[in-house]
Amino acid sequence: MKNNLGREVPFRPYTGAFDNVNYKEYNIEKQKEPKILKSWDEVLDSLDLKDGMTVSFHHHLRNGDKVLSAVMKELDKRKYKNITVAASSIFPCHEILVDLMEREVVTKIHCDYMSGPVATAVSKGKCKEPCIITTHGGRPREILEEELNIDIAFLGVPTVDTQGNGTGSQGRSNCGVLGYAIADAQMAKEVVLITDHLVDQVDHPEILGSWVDFILEVEEIGDPQGILSGTTQITKDPVGLMVAKKCIDLLDTLELLKEGMSFQTGAGGISLAVAKYLKEYMKKHGIKGSFASGGITDYLVNMMEEGYFETLEDVQCFTIGATKSIEKNKNHKKMSANEYANINNKENIVNKLDIVILGASEIDLDFHVNVSTGSNGEILGGSGGHGDTAAGAKFSVIVSKLINSRISVVVDRVRTVTTPGETIDCLITDRGIVINPKHHELIEKAKGNPNLDILTMEELYERAIAYTGKPKKVEATDRPVAYSQYRDGTILDTIYQVK
Amino acid sequence: MKNNLGREVPFRPYTGAFDNVNYKEYNIEKQKEPKILKSWDEVLDSLDLKDGMTVSFHHHLRNGDKVLSAVMKELDKRKYKNITVAASSIFPCHEILVDLMEREVVTKIHCDYMSGPVATAVSKGKCKEPCIITTHGGRPREILEEELNIDIAFLGVPTVDTQGNGTGSQGRSNCGVLGYAIADAQMAKEVVLITDHLVDQVDHPEILGSWVDFILEVEEIGDPQGILSGTTQITKDPVGLMVAKKCIDLLDTLELLKEGMSFQTGAGGISLAVAKYLKEYMKKHGIKGSFASGGITDYLVNMMEEGYFETLEDVQCFTIGATKSIEKNKNHKKMSANEYANINNKENIVNKLDIVILGASEIDLDFHVNVSTGSNGEILGGSGGHGDTAAGAKFSVIVSKLINSRISVVVDRVRTVTTPGETIDCLITDRGIVINPKHHELIEKAKGNPNLDILTMEELYERAIAYTGKPKKVEATDRPVAYSQYRDGTILDTIYQVK
Repeated sequence: MKNNLGREVPFRPYTGAFDNVNYKEYNIEKQKEPKILKSWDEVLDSLDLKDGMTVSFHHHLRNGDKVLSAVMKELDKRKYKNITVAASSIFPCHEILVDLMEREVVTKIHCDYMSGPVATAVSKGKCKEPCIITTHGGRPREILEEELNIDIAFLGVPTVDTQGNGTGSQGRSNCGVLGYAIADAQMAKEVVLITDHLVDQVDHPEILGSWVDFILEVEEIGDPQGILSGTTQITKDPVGLMVAKKCIDLLDTLELLKEGMSFQTGAGGISLAVAKYLKEYMKKHGIKGSFASGGITDYLVNMMEEGYFETLEDVQCFTIGATKSIEKNKNHKKMSANEYANINNKENIVNKLDIVILGASEIDLDFHVNVSTGSNGEILGGSGGHGDTAAGAKFSVIVSKLINSRISVVVDRVRTVTTPGETIDCLITDRGIVINPKHHELIEKAKGNPNLDILTMEELYERAIAYTGKPKKVEATDRPVAYSQYRDGTILDTIYQVK
Repeated sequence: MKNNLGREVPFRPYTGAFDNVNYKEYNIEKQKEPKILKSWDEVLDSLDLKDGMTVSFHHHLRNGDKVLSAVMKELDKRKYKNITVAASSIFPCHEILVDLMEREVVTKIHCDYMSGPVATAVSKGKCKEPCIITTHGGRPREILEEELNIDIAFLGVPTVDTQGNGTGSQGRSNCGVLGYAIADAQMAKEVVLITDHLVDQVDHPEILGSWVDFILEVEEIGDPQGILSGTTQITKDPVGLMVAKKCIDLLDTLELLKEGMSFQTGAGGISLAVAKYLKEYMKKHGIKGSFASGGITDYLVNMMEEGYFETLEDVQCFTIGATKSIEKNKNHKKMSANEYANINNKENIVNKLDIVILGASEIDLDFHVNVSTGSNGEILGGSGGHGDTAAGAKFSVIVSKLINSRISVVVDRVRTVTTPGETIDCLITDRGIVINPKHHELIEKAKGNPNLDILTMEELYERAIAYTGKPKKVEATDRPVAYSQYRDGTILDTIYQVK
């Protein structure tokens, strides 16, 4: 064929110098330095705000977070409506959302965990649309796979440099790691870093400047008192300690405590006690583990520093000791939530876990676990990493006192399925141990230890209600207020408005 | 609907903890530090190599480059075949490709410019498939828009840190800028940085570690003698100097030399002389320009340092002075080829250019310019930034002696269209000036200056052949060996095998 210059060409003939111009946004190339803005007004003027947008936040500043409230106040001032708040977790400090839900400024919440007044308000039907409570690994999956599309990520970052590189370390609001903020920073249409520590250069940033559009420096992004809070103490309750001891005894009997083992525990009092007794066991038997993972506490830092684990894989720091360890210990590694627990990320850390120790509000005859709703039907949490680690780890253990404030942890049917029973391997209580019946051999092995009281779930349930009586169930309405979403995006259960 | 736990859910019912696993590569998230490998064998073992792959290279090390040859030697050792070499430019130092084309190890070359033995071999039909010679702006467009898909980018980088951040500055192979390597680093399936200067930390990297998979440290990536070579001296030929003077006289007459003007010139001897006379003009008239762009030479650095231009927009350093200036001058800015000249990038620098001064091997009665093939039909270059700047700049000027070695630059019909005539505004020779007839007003204005000999292209052509006689055209075969590709991906012309 001939092109419009009369030249013989075989394909794509030239048609004119400016005929085929097609301006594009190549969003892969954001080497340009982000803009440093001076006020919330400048930030809002620079963003593509609209009714119905989805804005995202992370929860590394925990109950000390001041970013979500500050942003939502500004968006409210400008009269935006129907906003979806996609926050990795909601804490009591985010109470402003209650009023915003009532006025339909916010009409949906998408999180991995919610507690406090916002959870209560959602339970009471104050949010127009049902909320989604997913898992810590489900959230980055949804974001990276563009199921959850974030318009603007507002990320509180303890230290940011002028090129937009950010880290959770250093500064007055040091929270150590930003694992739950990475996917947001990578995928949101616009990314704003809010910091109270703007510096010339950040080494080893978790948030890369190339992902960032705007930076705002503020007085404070968080209250240091609230940032590093939560249950991070080993229980002093002798019954709890006994459960933890039994746990080690069982794992020993099942020959699961081995050289090179990997381990995760939640920050609950009994779970931390398991770590304490594990250390004693490892010391006595001369065993060293490979890694400990998850939210990191002082106790795990000490175990790593004393050589009981080679490395820590840290998605979130729970203590000041953990934030300090990150700065000095090379083998205390930061990871993103995707690297931690995304089911579709082949190399995720939870898949490499040997043992995870978890808690429960309820566990039922099918081994389903509820950590989402309380006995009154109100939302009191959500999966966090519960569903991810239970599914990933080779052996998942629920530790709990059988009866807490006259309520049995074992029930016939959990109110809300947070973690499906097929991923739970064992329940350890002060009044009996249940191993998932799919593990025939392990059950036989455990029964060989006369110190372990091995039952079926039905037997333990009967034992519990012999003490507590059969509990009356608090009924809910039939209006859905939230969905318990599994890590793969499917829906495990519906949470209904309380009466 | 009920999910497989028997729970009522409205959508996406849970089906099982591991039913929906779908392992994915989230290539947006490459925060992991790249692997530092120890040998070429380790590099090749780590890559996804296969017959028919496309491997890419940049040309910032120019005729001193040792990376392309080293890589191709290794790929040949492992007996891969049908490789496409996508290099931003090919120089004489890449002679190894001649043998590899003959043995069908390499069967296609995709570049913006080729010279030396490889160009001769391609002209003689040694490459199995026709090559593509595109423009400096066309290449990043093709890569970013996934028309040119690179399997592995092998990028020689003068300084690299252990996290994979790379810069053209510093080290023994300092080449200043890496503008032509950025798109490759962003888009290639796998990215290998080859360096002879591995450091702890690179400030202000052009290549971000998050794009990089592997790093190899070698003895030397380039020969410093060859890196900063090429025609970078102002011509001493009095006829060339006269052409340059006439150029300034014409631009002055057309009132194009104004406060705030932006300017680009090639590194040819006459073009550089234009910069020299421009400086004298600016000094005399107290004019200051906004930016100078493109490949940067000492002359432009001096003009910027003396205040004649506010900034330099640098896609490639041609001189040692330019590499030093980058390190010390904040207003000497690095840019990627996408930022420089991609037609679909709205903010590209060439679109902001007021004046560009270019050379030509041939220019014809339609103003089409050839810088691709010589009078014998052999490939001797290619567009580089010629087509991009001619199209982008408000006024594009070709400067040339009318007759060079008894051959006229003006011909009836160029052998190969490199730059379409509609984007050329003016030709300035020692024996007459032609302004594109679309510029009626400018032609009248120019004719008002009695020192300027304003002709039509036909008149200048007649004037030339009155001296040279009508040249005999060297005929070629009818076998295509390369295509001259425009910046928008369309084909301008076919280059045929020489006889």
